[in-house]
This record gives sequence, C-alpha cells and structure tokens, in this order.
Amino acid sequence: MRIALLGGTGDVGAGLALRWGHDTNHELLVGSRDPERAREASERYAAAVADRDREATVKGFDNAMVTDRADVAVLCVPAYHVADTVASVASGLDGDTVVVTPAAGTRRDDEGVHSHPPSAGSVAALVRGAVPDEAPVVGAFHTLAASRLADLDAALGVDTLVFGDDDDAKATVARLAEEIDGLRALDAGGLASAPEVEATTPLLVNVAANDDDVSDPGIRFS
Amino acid sequence: MRIALLGGTGDVGAGLALRWGHDTNHELLVGSRDPERAREASERYAAAVADRDREATVKGFDNAMVTDRADVAVLCVPAYHVADTVASVASGLDGDTVVVTPAAGTRRDDEGVHSHPPSAGSVAALVRGAVPDEAPVVGAFHTLAASRLADLDAALGVDTLVFGDDDDAKATVARLAEEIDGLRALDAGGLASAPEVEATTPLLVNVAANDDDVSDPGIRFS
Repeated sequence: MRIALLGGTGDVGAGLALRWGHDTNHELLVGSRDPERAREASERYAAAVADRDREATVKGFDNAMVTDRADVAVLCVPAYHVADTVASVASGLDGDTVVVTPAAGTRRDDEGVHSHPPSAGSVAALVRGAVPDEAPVVGAFHTLAASRLADLDAALGVDTLVFGDDDDAKATVARLAEEIDGLRALDAGGLASAPEVEATTPLLVNVAANDDDVSDPGIRFS
Repeated sequence: MRIALLGGTGDVGAGLALRWGHDTNHELLVGSRDPERAREASERYAAAVADRDREATVKGFDNAMVTDRADVAVLCVPAYHVADTVASVASGLDGDTVVVTPAAGTRRDDEGVHSHPPSAGSVAALVRGAVPDEAPVVGAFHTLAASRLADLDAALGVDTLVFGDDDDAKATVARLAEEIDGLRALDAGGLASAPEVEATTPLLVNVAANDDDVSDPGIRFS
C-alpha cells in the first residue's frame, strides 16, 4: 500500500514513517510544501530504519505529488495548517484515497493545554468539509505521543482510536495501525466522535506535564 | 474521613461505596433525596462488603444531612441532576468540605454518545459556580465504568484523572482514589481541564459499544 504523510517532515510524520518503515513493507511517501525538505526527511527515515537492519521504502516529494500517488494520505500537519494543506491537495483526492486526520486543535494557557477546535467543531469535520465528498475521511493516531512513536527503542503497548463514517476506510486504517508493533486500534465510532477523540490530545499533554510517573504517555483501554 | 455520596443510591455511588467500604476504613454516608432509599442502599452496601469478610461503616440519610457531616462530598448524580442536587445542599458547604464532581454531560444520538456539557462549559464549572467560593471543587472518577467499579470481583488496574484549583483538596481526593485497590490517580491540571476529562466518559461508552474486546473499559495512561 502507498501511504502519503503530508507534512511528513514534522513530529507525527517522523513517528509514523519510522514505525511503518520499520514494521511493514508499505511504500511511504513523505510530503512537504518544500520537496527538498521532504527528500531529506525521507533519507533520514530510511537511514534510521536501515540502522536496525530493516529496509524501508521511503521517498520525498511535495504534498500534491505524494497525495496523487497515495492509497492513504495522512494529514501530519498541526491543526492550524490542516485547512491550507488540504486546499493544496484536494484536487488530487478522490474515492480511491483514504484521508486520515490525526490532528487536534489545542490552545495553551496558564493552566495547561486545552481543546480549541476549529469552527467546524473538530479538525475531522473541517477535513470532511474540505475534501471531495467521495474521499473517505478517518480519524486516528490522536492518542500517541509523537516523540515516543519516533523512538524505535520505545515500546508502545497502547491503543489508537479510529473513527469515521466509511467502514471500509476505517478498517483499512485500523489494519495499518495494527501493523505497527504494540499498537491496537479501537473503533471509537463515526466522525461525530471527533470532538471526544481530539480532546484526548490536550488531556495527554496535561497528564504528562503534571505527573512524574508518566512521560510521553499513551492510552490503553482495558 | 467522612465521605458523603450524594445520590449515592445510583451506579456511581454504589461503585464508590463498595470499593471504599471494602478497601478502606472511611465512614461512608450515602445520601439521597429520599432518606429511606439511602438507608436501604447503605444496608445493601454494608452487606455486600460483609459477605467478603470486611466491615464497612455505611449509613444513609438525606443529601443535606450527609453533606453537613462530610469532609468530602461526592456528587454521584447524573449531570442533569447536578444543579438541583447542589442547590439542595449548598448551605451545608464551606471550606472544610471538598466537593467532588465525577459527572459528565452527554447526549445519545444515532451515532453513539457525545459530549453535551452544561452551558457553564463543563459540569465542574457548573458546580464551581453553584457552591460557596470557599468550598474546594475537585473533578475525579470520570474514567471508571460504574458497573465494573461496583463489581468487587473485577480488578481495576486503571487510572482516574483528578483536577482542580485547590492543591490540598486535589491531594485529598487523589489519596482517597488510590486507597481503592488497583486505582491510580493522575493529576490532569486545574478546573480548566474539565472539558477534556469529562469528554472521556462518552469516549469510553463509544469504545465499549463498538469494540468486542473491551467491555466496561477504563483508561490506563502509560
């Protein structure tokens, strides 16, 4: 499968590229507004996987080009860049590309980090409104600390919550998630579950900030 | 310590009464609008603990009376009854009583259960606005499935998120939570964290409804 990581030079993109590169044989397409940065990042990810005697297929291009080629396109950009990133690639999306949204709108204040969704109500709803109707939208990967994901020495043993209105697309993303060692995919329902799932991101940041015995925490439902 | 469970005849009250009754020596005061129902419930809880060769101190009275006597008062009523329950007991609250709010505003629709906070923004904010300024308000116990809490055969092994603006009160509630076997208290920040923590309740309901391999799930941060 061809997985595009839009904005894949950032934390979340690095984590997913390294894990999928290490644990699977999928073809990874790192996207960026700047194709040169994408190419550099893809070489870095491939080298990190090769250091562990595995081989990853990773290439870097601009966001539009990786989207064009992808079966699954993950929007690895911060929430405040989701709208312009989607606008820059929407013409390359159709019913054959699953769009995955892992971002959450947050705002930091004196008391920590809190939910600050876009006016659409959630990042997932914003994405749903911005991509062609036939392109399925799935939410996933909100509950993973990017730094831990990017550390191939760190065991996961955590869950990711997958939600969306297209069952086939949701199953595809759940399968891709579970191909990462130590990651379990749980079904959190339809796109209407986006606000609750996206709220787990600030929750995890606050728990990590306040509690000495958890760092880069993930969530396990049991 | 004297712990009042307002609306303690319901699911959450039963769970907390049974766990504290079984695992600690605190004096438990079950409250209800109907003192007779409270007395019956308290006898039921004491008998269930006695069946396991432990002894619980549990009594039942009306909500106002248990609040008057309590060091800690837990609002075990559904979100839509929090306002009237608090109004009925507010005159008995002062700086010596920690008010604990475990409820979350939710609404069920065709797609599951979703956050539906009161107009104050969260149940905790509603409580904060309704009790005297000097009474500390702490949020806790949102991530626990009531049915699992009430089943003394069920191991917990889960976390509860504690939040509030009064550090002493928060520490008291965290200590009480951790006196329950298998429960770890994590600090989720100040009262401003209420929306994210209260959103975990519908999230857990949806995950339980959609996933065969989790029933009555709790959350563990790791």
